[in-house]
Amino acid sequence: MAHLRIALAQTNPVVGDLAANSAKLLDWTRQAAAGGAHLVLFTEMFLTGYPVEDLALRSSFVDASIATLEQVAARLAGEGLGELPVVVGSMDRAGLAPRAGRPEGAPLDAVALLHRGRVVTRTAKHHLQNYGVFDEFRYFVPGDRLPVFRLHGVDVAIAVCEDLWQDGGPVAVVGKAGAGLLVVPNASPYEREKADVRLELVARRAREAGCALAYVNQVGGQDELVFDGGSIVVGADGELVARAGQFREELLLVDLDLPVADREPGRTAHDAGDGSTITVDRFVLSGEPVTIDAPVTPSIAPRLDDMAEVYAALVLGVRDYVAKNGFESVILALSGGIDSALTATIASDAIGPERVHVVMMPSRHSSEHSVTDAEELVRRQGVNSLLVPIDGIVTAFEKEIELTGTAAENIQARVRGTVLMGLSNAHGHLVLTTGNKSELATGYSTLYGDSAGGFAPIKDVPKTMVRELSRWRNAHTDGWFRMDVARPIPANSITKEPSAELRPGQCDTDSLPPYEVLDRLLDDHVEKDLGSAELVAAGHDPDLVAHVVSLVDPAEHKRRQYPPGPKITSKHFGRDRRLPITSHRHETT
Amino acid sequence: MAHLRIALAQTNPVVGDLAANSAKLLDWTRQAAAGGAHLVLFTEMFLTGYPVEDLALRSSFVDASIATLEQVAARLAGEGLGELPVVVGSMDRAGLAPRAGRPEGAPLDAVALLHRGRVVTRTAKHHLQNYGVFDEFRYFVPGDRLPVFRLHGVDVAIAVCEDLWQDGGPVAVVGKAGAGLLVVPNASPYEREKADVRLELVARRAREAGCALAYVNQVGGQDELVFDGGSIVVGADGELVARAGQFREELLLVDLDLPVADREPGRTAHDAGDGSTITVDRFVLSGEPVTIDAPVTPSIAPRLDDMAEVYAALVLGVRDYVAKNGFESVILALSGGIDSALTATIASDAIGPERVHVVMMPSRHSSEHSVTDAEELVRRQGVNSLLVPIDGIVTAFEKEIELTGTAAENIQARVRGTVLMGLSNAHGHLVLTTGNKSELATGYSTLYGDSAGGFAPIKDVPKTMVRELSRWRNAHTDGWFRMDVARPIPANSITKEPSAELRPGQCDTDSLPPYEVLDRLLDDHVEKDLGSAELVAAGHDPDLVAHVVSLVDPAEHKRRQYPPGPKITSKHFGRDRRLPITSHRHETT
Repeated sequence: MAHLRIALAQTNPVVGDLAANSAKLLDWTRQAAAGGAHLVLFTEMFLTGYPVEDLALRSSFVDASIATLEQVAARLAGEGLGELPVVVGSMDRAGLAPRAGRPEGAPLDAVALLHRGRVVTRTAKHHLQNYGVFDEFRYFVPGDRLPVFRLHGVDVAIAVCEDLWQDGGPVAVVGKAGAGLLVVPNASPYEREKADVRLELVARRAREAGCALAYVNQVGGQDELVFDGGSIVVGADGELVARAGQFREELLLVDLDLPVADREPGRTAHDAGDGSTITVDRFVLSGEPVTIDAPVTPSIAPRLDDMAEVYAALVLGVRDYVAKNGFESVILALSGGIDSALTATIASDAIGPERVHVVMMPSRHSSEHSVTDAEELVRRQGVNSLLVPIDGIVTAFEKEIELTGTAAENIQARVRGTVLMGLSNAHGHLVLTTGNKSELATGYSTLYGDSAGGFAPIKDVPKTMVRELSRWRNAHTDGWFRMDVARPIPANSITKEPSAELRPGQCDTDSLPPYEVLDRLLDDHVEKDLGSAELVAAGHDPDLVAHVVSLVDPAEHKRRQYPPGPKITSKHFGRDRRLPITSHRHETT
Repeated sequence: MAHLRIALAQTNPVVGDLAANSAKLLDWTRQAAAGGAHLVLFTEMFLTGYPVEDLALRSSFVDASIATLEQVAARLAGEGLGELPVVVGSMDRAGLAPRAGRPEGAPLDAVALLHRGRVVTRTAKHHLQNYGVFDEFRYFVPGDRLPVFRLHGVDVAIAVCEDLWQDGGPVAVVGKAGAGLLVVPNASPYEREKADVRLELVARRAREAGCALAYVNQVGGQDELVFDGGSIVVGADGELVARAGQFREELLLVDLDLPVADREPGRTAHDAGDGSTITVDRFVLSGEPVTIDAPVTPSIAPRLDDMAEVYAALVLGVRDYVAKNGFESVILALSGGIDSALTATIASDAIGPERVHVVMMPSRHSSEHSVTDAEELVRRQGVNSLLVPIDGIVTAFEKEIELTGTAAENIQARVRGTVLMGLSNAHGHLVLTTGNKSELATGYSTLYGDSAGGFAPIKDVPKTMVRELSRWRNAHTDGWFRMDVARPIPANSITKEPSAELRPGQCDTDSLPPYEVLDRLLDDHVEKDLGSAELVAAGHDPDLVAHVVSLVDPAEHKRRQYPPGPKITSKHFGRDRRLPITSHRHETT
């Protein structure tokens, strides 16, 4: 047996900020060295941040990231850290000629090995992701290598993120390559229950390859995504050895006993089982085994429960969106209802209540409790507040244009949006919108009204879960919230009947089914992509299916009457990227 | 020599409307039969419309399109049209097992051959497009066949759209397959000067394959794209034989003298030069040659000139967006300036001035000519107009919140947006925004103000071209405009100095360089994707580069100070699909 202490750097890079990410790489490598690590692992595309999206196609950015990587290697050596190998994700180029259909410059989602002041080897992701939130065929060409470097007598293979998830490719030849350890940099975004899926996958791949596996994952919010960390190390038997915490940066040190390598250096080509050939490139950094005098106790962070995970993801998403986009503060409309109450609470927990500004904007249709409940939240949380009655402004609109029904109701929401945007423009606050997923899916909101803003913290949270999260937050005072307040959400905001308060006595259930019913239907229609006939077959009420499907996409509902299947109703829903904006879709009804 | 009369059905399908597209297929096939055609060619994914985007992943839609195709084949035979083969694009499934990374259901961008009441063969696009406006790796799996059917003694091969553009694949084996004619259904969106590129490509592929080539292209607006038609037929020498018009539906009949086929039916596998193997599937529909008694004169539609093309694309885009989304009318703000004047004119030419509604919304900072020039346009075009002074509303805002500078100026734009949206909600008009590409690129507009609306006709037109198009339209009274008016745009709107009129004496050049200078720089930065250093190297003024680049992406500009390359400044620009909306970016400055 040989020994290695590996350091998993579960970090939070900023997309495009090569300087800051480089500085962080140096800092964390110093810490790993101080901790006695023999190998440091950073995440996928750590140097550039992930996902870089269109930056991948800007050649000056790829040039800069390649040059920065070489500088970082030299700086590590200059600081006396050259003997400590660093595996880090960055960008590279495949050196392929331009061709129709190939991303310009043939960029690679690359991983480099830095050692003794140099970039010793490079590899790249083989299986590009092009589903869900990923568009990698647009940006990258696939890699076709599996580097295996010998470190203190152990053969260490490097693969990248998605190569674990898909069959065939570099991970499929790790076993044949006889590696003792497989290290995998990742940038895997948070989804509910995904941590379990990841552990199962990593354990399976370790058993298939017959070697230990170190999975290091990015953490932090980046644009619309949240990365949850939760890096893991498993043994060759698939058993969990160590796990980092979720939703926080962490340097995870792990001591491993690994088999001594016995193969010859050199290159060999392998059929990778997916129609491709993968070249295994085996070379030696250091043959000398090491001993570990004072072993570290393996740390296995406990898993958060479901609601804690979701809440932590929402808080981290807001915190990093604010920070990475250079905002100092946020502003939102506080109605006294549960959606804005939860949004304010998430914001206070993310950046502190002193940087949260709320505006109460009662109209003639606002109930008394709308202001008193909002004021109660202000009192509990200590956020900054402002009262801007909108009746005079609405009256001024009514003098100039005559509107009735929904058109008139929407004026109130748009006046509020204009007030928020004015205050944002004047003071630099990021406007948070407070719409939940149930509202957004059914169009129960006003375009350019309550939907106006820069970031929508609870846009992926169904209304029933908004209630659940509110109750959960009121029941917890975990140390990681930035706001140290018990029961920050007034109970009345949680229990009162939902209303947009745009006309006298209005209730959400005037237009929508009860949220418990609606959310189950939306989950089947939007998340599971079931069509009308399939929804009815799944047990949903046929009239309700017709109604909700017409709300989710009225235009499609009207037009798509094709024989003989069910109606097609929600083109572009889900992860929509090119929704034609129409003025009809998103109206309070 | 054998003879064939082929009919190219250059048509305008509606995405998702299988019933309407089927009816159109029957109707045009009847016309082709009446014209004596021996073969009818429809466009790529004609039955489903193109691009279907997320509909490809809804299994009930794919089921319906497969079933509809079979019904259409039966209906053709039922009408006595079964002997006339029809080549038509639709959807199919590859029958592959589910696998990570594979689009669910393994959908195909398919082309079918209908004959004697049946779907005789199916093939599918091999080279999927995943650049520019295309995301096909998200939706489809690649095809691997080249069907060759014998029709009246001629071997006819079928390939799909992108397979012409990329090297290798089915088109590369057409020559080895010995086809006498290659037919290619397409859905190729309009870009300036693309018609020339297409003709050159088609001629080259015909010469490479040694056979005639019929290229039939979709026409019409669909969501954000405009398809321009311009279908072409070339001989085996690459010479142009026939061409359909641009931006209009047309059934193009062409008589061809083609070599008599002499190969045996059966399947053969070929190395396709791109790492794939393509199976040529040769079969016989009818061996008997035909004679053509009364040949048709080949029609070669003249090419439109550059400005006519652009104007036609804009008009068609508006017309089809209105029609396909079920609107009856449009509404827009008419300021007296050139952008709104051109937008109104395009709308009048698209759907007729009687369905165009304009609103004049002067404020205390509006010049006198802003209303008189707008009124002059109303008089000339006969559009519906409404005057809504906004000063009272702006004053009501000022009573409730104290704002200065840009924040105060933006209130005016947002009040106008709210008025338009209110009228849209009340009367069902589609709101057209009037921003041009130069403004949108530099953020010289107000979020939720002048940028509020459902469709932005001139969003891809730089300001200098707005002027050019306006002059061009005033100089032309071509028959295809729906508005029969000479010089519809008041000269003063074209020649006056551009101003947002949000403060006294404001000019665009207070904040921006002259548009001639700006547009050249934006073209290099946004279209050609040059970074700051490259822009300076290309001869642009360094201060101007820094200024404009900071406008195009202020957040990136602030943060991306990485060594040693130039600054990275416009992540997400161009065809942006996931721009995080921030309240800072799009402000009038």
